[in-house]
Amino acid sequence: MSEEKNSGTTSRRQFLSGLTAAGGMLASSSGLALAPQQPTRIPGAPASELGVRSSFEAPRRLPAFNVVSLTPLQDLHGTITPADLHFERHHGGVPKIDPGRHELLIHGMVDKPLKFSLEQLKRFPAVTRTCFIECSGNLNLRADENSSPQMLCGLTSQSEWTGVALSTLLREVGVKPRASWLLAEGSDAAVLTRSITLSKAMDDALVVYAQNGEAIRPEQGYPMRLLLPGWEGNTNVKWLRRLELSDSPFMTREETSKYTEPLKDDTARMFSVVMDARSVITSPTFPRILDKGWHEIRGIAWSGRGRIVRVEISLNGGKNWREARLHGPVLSKAHTRFSLPWHWDGSGAEICSRATDETGYVQPTRRQLIDARGPGNQVYHLNPVMSWIIHSDGKVIYKAEPWA
Amino acid sequence: MSEEKNSGTTSRRQFLSGLTAAGGMLASSSGLALAPQQPTRIPGAPASELGVRSSFEAPRRLPAFNVVSLTPLQDLHGTITPADLHFERHHGGVPKIDPGRHELLIHGMVDKPLKFSLEQLKRFPAVTRTCFIECSGNLNLRADENSSPQMLCGLTSQSEWTGVALSTLLREVGVKPRASWLLAEGSDAAVLTRSITLSKAMDDALVVYAQNGEAIRPEQGYPMRLLLPGWEGNTNVKWLRRLELSDSPFMTREETSKYTEPLKDDTARMFSVVMDARSVITSPTFPRILDKGWHEIRGIAWSGRGRIVRVEISLNGGKNWREARLHGPVLSKAHTRFSLPWHWDGSGAEICSRATDETGYVQPTRRQLIDARGPGNQVYHLNPVMSWIIHSDGKVIYKAEPWA
Repeated sequence: MSEEKNSGTTSRRQFLSGLTAAGGMLASSSGLALAPQQPTRIPGAPASELGVRSSFEAPRRLPAFNVVSLTPLQDLHGTITPADLHFERHHGGVPKIDPGRHELLIHGMVDKPLKFSLEQLKRFPAVTRTCFIECSGNLNLRADENSSPQMLCGLTSQSEWTGVALSTLLREVGVKPRASWLLAEGSDAAVLTRSITLSKAMDDALVVYAQNGEAIRPEQGYPMRLLLPGWEGNTNVKWLRRLELSDSPFMTREETSKYTEPLKDDTARMFSVVMDARSVITSPTFPRILDKGWHEIRGIAWSGRGRIVRVEISLNGGKNWREARLHGPVLSKAHTRFSLPWHWDGSGAEICSRATDETGYVQPTRRQLIDARGPGNQVYHLNPVMSWIIHSDGKVIYKAEPWA
Repeated sequence: MSEEKNSGTTSRRQFLSGLTAAGGMLASSSGLALAPQQPTRIPGAPASELGVRSSFEAPRRLPAFNVVSLTPLQDLHGTITPADLHFERHHGGVPKIDPGRHELLIHGMVDKPLKFSLEQLKRFPAVTRTCFIECSGNLNLRADENSSPQMLCGLTSQSEWTGVALSTLLREVGVKPRASWLLAEGSDAAVLTRSITLSKAMDDALVVYAQNGEAIRPEQGYPMRLLLPGWEGNTNVKWLRRLELSDSPFMTREETSKYTEPLKDDTARMFSVVMDARSVITSPTFPRILDKGWHEIRGIAWSGRGRIVRVEISLNGGKNWREARLHGPVLSKAHTRFSLPWHWDGSGAEICSRATDETGYVQPTRRQLIDARGPGNQVYHLNPVMSWIIHSDGKVIYKAEPWA
């Protein structure tokens, strides 16, 4: 490194000759500035403390109602969601928290209640895990045919998370034999609370402080959040400040009036926290216009119950299915890329995908979901096979159908 | 999602009562503004198009000489480097490139020379791979004891890359039987060129357009770069605009006067492109001050030849070694996390780590490297075991020794 300092610096003379060569088409640092016709004829920007995106790229979340924003699934590649594009769902806005004053209290049915600062958490053995977080209300039932994957179901994102195993912290406080549930509480204005089974807490739950290599982002729970791989988003309590051990669930607002599914017999399903297997085609989708020839049908599939073992793609609305390629490493409870090469000949088509996970569960059709649950008042845990219609002019639209 | 719009919005009344409760300590959006004493008593920020880091976190690259900037390894967790913290090394600055005008030409010993636009590249089957890129000059020989891992060897970073297999593109143009090398050329002001063996090109080389889920960053080669997993950074040519097939290497400036290693017999090693196995402790390191008790020794290890199979840690400067835990998934040619719990009793210690890869190669000591290469004029491919000295007052310093 030390000897490289002379090999790449640009002198004032070089800089001025570059200016002349580029005919004054200097790129400015703001907005969609012009790029030089010949980038090789003008010295580039110096090294910097922090990179910024190309001004030709502007991926954006789609905020709605102040309390959600959706990840631009159709614009992303691979499996990692950039931290600033991770979907948001909050019940009282994003709090601003001083990490030096934040503490996590673990109490209730424990031998020794303890408070943990962020610095103390970081001293415990660290665990890193890549997994998705998906909001349980991740299907826009009012979407019309001019809807992108982001607008339809952009409430799923994936990060590499790092933190400490919750089981490690529970060993520190000593869980009393009768304890079987715990309450997780956030320090946002909603003071969001959820009841978590002790078995999940001891299995693969983490208290995470890092996301994609750096400190967790404010919208994702800075300085710490609960991570329950495969469980619905809101149970992964953000801005986590308290865990209380008990022998029964706490029946909070979020598990009685909210986050339950009405069933056909007029009862409601409660504590339905595991996200079922699902797949979403991300390309080609609205607003793409296709031209004839080779394309690759691409998407992501995931399951809260383990690994994805199969994704099938149909080109004719579900009459016949072909097996897509899964791109490794295929991780448990994680977005998995799938793809299928496709030569489009210009005739109409209806493309859709369905996922199967390692438990044998197959992603259902819309009709199967309606038959099982009834048509009315559905919001949560809707993971139907979704179709995209390709018109002969190349226009791609979402096959929007009423939930009835 | 559709029914969630009423559950989390804050009314004007709530907002005003929050203001009162927080005693006017509203957080401003700029700088290190005060956080409210009680975050639960004040409505948080609404959902947004693009997230920003907490104002309490400020990870930064360390720029030097305008042409490099170093990744803050000691501040990172897991294995992914956030795109805006990926190290930089450029020879003519970061060019500003209009992706609509950029083309990749493949010509020379081919049946049919072709140009590919970015959009055309994206139609080919996509391949995603997580791997490190490391500059071959990644050891600061002038570092003193007050040096962080970033200052010592911050020229390695890791991303999840997506693009098209170079073998796919070469099949399109048809490689003539005599071709055995290709020239890769960038469209920066240095017009950086390197000769690549056809065997590497056909093996695992990619032309990538995405990094950590989004478009590749300008400093990393936007709109496209060559990715040669495990090969020294400069061969992963950024802003890639041309590949020329030939029957011999092109002997460019970067492979004759630069990027060669002088040997003891006064000859120089050329085309030494594969990065050897290495490990770096990232915690505890300078500038940390330790207190007594349990800590976790953490770091990253990697090899350009395949998977890391073992990392050992010594607490006494290499006299005895203990095996560290490797955190999966352990990927080939990728940063791999390792850790070892350690109870520090307040006495002096010298901690160091050494990696072994799947070929059986063991990371050498500084002395072994000097003996093999001679002491003089070394810049590239220096991957010695590095030590950190813990003083009894908790101060952690780098064990800086002359390269002689």
